[in-house]
Amino acid sequence: LVKQFEGESRDRGSWLGIPDDEFATVKKLITKEEVRVVTLAKLRLRHDMVLWDIGAGSGSISIEADHLLPNGKIFAVERNAECRAFIKQNLQAFNTRNVHLVEGDAPECLEDLPDPDRVFIGGSGGHLWEILEVADRRLPADGRIVLNAITLDTLTAANEFFANAGYRVEVVTINVARTRPLTDYKMFEAYNPVYIISADKQ
Amino acid sequence: LVKQFEGESRDRGSWLGIPDDEFATVKKLITKEEVRVVTLAKLRLRHDMVLWDIGAGSGSISIEADHLLPNGKIFAVERNAECRAFIKQNLQAFNTRNVHLVEGDAPECLEDLPDPDRVFIGGSGGHLWEILEVADRRLPADGRIVLNAITLDTLTAANEFFANAGYRVEVVTINVARTRPLTDYKMFEAYNPVYIISADKQ
Amino acid sequence: LVKQFEGESRDRGSWLGIPDDEFATVKKLITKEEVRVVTLAKLRLRHDMVLWDIGAGSGSISIEADHLLPNGKIFAVERNAECRAFIKQNLQAFNTRNVHLVEGDAPECLEDLPDPDRVFIGGSGGHLWEILEVADRRLPADGRIVLNAITLDTLTAANEFFANAGYRVEVVTINVARTRPLTDYKMFEAYNPVYIISADKQ
Amino acid sequence: LVKQFEGESRDRGSWLGIPDDEFATVKKLITKEEVRVVTLAKLRLRHDMVLWDIGAGSGSISIEADHLLPNGKIFAVERNAECRAFIKQNLQAFNTRNVHLVEGDAPECLEDLPDPDRVFIGGSGGHLWEILEVADRRLPADGRIVLNAITLDTLTAANEFFANAGYRVEVVTINVARTRPLTDYKMFEAYNPVYIISADKQ
Repeated sequence: LVKQFEGESRDRGSWLGIPDDEFATVKKLITKEEVRVVTLAKLRLRHDMVLWDIGAGSGSISIEADHLLPNGKIFAVERNAECRAFIKQNLQAFNTRNVHLVEGDAPECLEDLPDPDRVFIGGSGGHLWEILEVADRRLPADGRIVLNAITLDTLTAANEFFANAGYRVEVVTINVARTRPLTDYKMFEAYNPVYIISADKQ
Repeated sequence: LVKQFEGESRDRGSWLGIPDDEFATVKKLITKEEVRVVTLAKLRLRHDMVLWDIGAGSGSISIEADHLLPNGKIFAVERNAECRAFIKQNLQAFNTRNVHLVEGDAPECLEDLPDPDRVFIGGSGGHLWEILEVADRRLPADGRIVLNAITLDTLTAANEFFANAGYRVEVVTINVARTRPLTDYKMFEAYNPVYIISADKQ
Repeated sequence: LVKQFEGESRDRGSWLGIPDDEFATVKKLITKEEVRVVTLAKLRLRHDMVLWDIGAGSGSISIEADHLLPNGKIFAVERNAECRAFIKQNLQAFNTRNVHLVEGDAPECLEDLPDPDRVFIGGSGGHLWEILEVADRRLPADGRIVLNAITLDTLTAANEFFANAGYRVEVVTINVARTRPLTDYKMFEAYNPVYIISADKQ
Repeated sequence: LVKQFEGESRDRGSWLGIPDDEFATVKKLITKEEVRVVTLAKLRLRHDMVLWDIGAGSGSISIEADHLLPNGKIFAVERNAECRAFIKQNLQAFNTRNVHLVEGDAPECLEDLPDPDRVFIGGSGGHLWEILEVADRRLPADGRIVLNAITLDTLTAANEFFANAGYRVEVVTINVARTRPLTDYKMFEAYNPVYIISADKQ
């Protein structure tokens, strides 16, 4: 009963743009609201696609993607047990339908998943290159991989991979600053910049 | 026949994040893809809401909102005839269902529209304050107004209005730069910064 | 002897761009290196000018200006005793020649100072408008006032003052992010954005 | 006589921060005022140093450095004849004392120059790696190389070089937007982002 009530109170229909503080999370591990929706836009999701969300963190990308993939499947891959506990909690709170939580290390744990139409990489646990190799092998032509990078190292490695593999690449860098709603004065606080890399298989 | 084919070829299902160059538009008047999706997120759209899109320009906000408001109504208000011609073209190309094009000057032409749940102001034709007064009068409690400002003047005026009217305000500033996909080298090109002001009626 | 050695070791000749961590300071109160040099550039300092540095904080602006004003005078105004202690320490460490520390609240404590050619306002203690009025009265034609604002409120108030007083105004907003030199990976960390307002008396 | 008058009218003493429009230049090739002064700060110039300014463009970095190196030597290296004509014009207009214009392709034309204490690379004409190798060979311990990169390719290549060569590296990215002083409304216009890479030889 309580659960149903929670579900109702948080049912957002097709709402886009869930505020960061509605997710249970280790604070540092959430993709900020503004970056999250731009990432979703870059994923070019069609209603029936299969999405791999690798390094799912708090599950925020998978959860927002759930509404955009009513006939699709989302695999939220996370190797960290503490994060997985938060993901479970968030999946329940937001009543997702099509998100499957996958436990384990990428790329190994990707083997049993259905081939993806889209791959999002939010974290790679130091195995970026291997993950990209598997994603590339499993992705159909016209498939798309999107990465969020906060270090130059990830940005550089991803660009090198995609150049070698013949992908068409766009990099967007986003600097967001926001004022807090409940303060007397409006001071801008900056997020760290994020690079969103979108790569199309040719 | 041709029209149907066009419709099919551009049917995006629930795709979010339409690339800028898919809209017919006076180039300078489009809200850039990344800013557009953040704006949509800030609008917190629920499936059955009424949205006023004031200063619709090329109609890109209305068109992307159409998928997020399957049971709602969107009024794209534009006083410029050339822009309206582009909007018509875009509505047709994207097969929107719930977007109504409104001809005329805001705030006058808003009188006959149903009360909004959400108001987006992308342009005000020099009548920002009057538009905000009408929006405020017609908006229910818990309604939300979102503005995109590219000048300090608009930002300042909007903040002053919302402070006087007792709204809860958040301002986000977004700096985006992107590389072009088809060039030999990856050079970042910056968009001009945009302020996205979100104001909740209390 | 120790002091002389210290002086030698930190004597920077005409060095521009003192790293933030060379100043003794309450960390949050320093103008970051990159913003500081842009601020100095905007001040358009000539060798023999009189500069008021209002809300001097750690004294970093005054200290860097000291090399650019070998025949000038700099008045570092600070009402907070703790900050003044840091300023004293920094003035000594950097062997400044022309910086005078002024104790008290602006604008009152400005009365006894010589007329300025340039005014920098880094903090106003809630008396921005009154400080601008005094600065405006004491500034010669072709004088210049530069402000660093981190809130919309300060930005708006300053713009309003300068518009009323007929100044020619330029606003620059700067978003800086930097990697840390001694980490394994290069992650960008953002500073909060700063508005630098430069206003010329006509 | 005319020349002397010109000299007087533009004599800036130790002014820092020359507005972009005071340089004769192909517009796209100037380092913007704000980025220029941050670059100068990162160069950590002491009064008697030798600076190589490679890919000098309009000469703006050399010209601003001239005041900071009263007892030093600056070599402005530029292979493009049109740019060199602008540099000559600018050196004369700003009455520089210590700037030497060097014609030719880097790294070849660097052979005959005195060893540098500081190297700035604003352009490399496709020979970045070779230029860095020569700069590294000629630079003393504690020497510093600063690069401005506007492409990911340059940023990546420079980081790779410095990592291999054991330099201590800091990367700063700067996003600047500014309003125009003489317009009715204040609209922010963005510069493209610039990466400033500072590398210390160990």
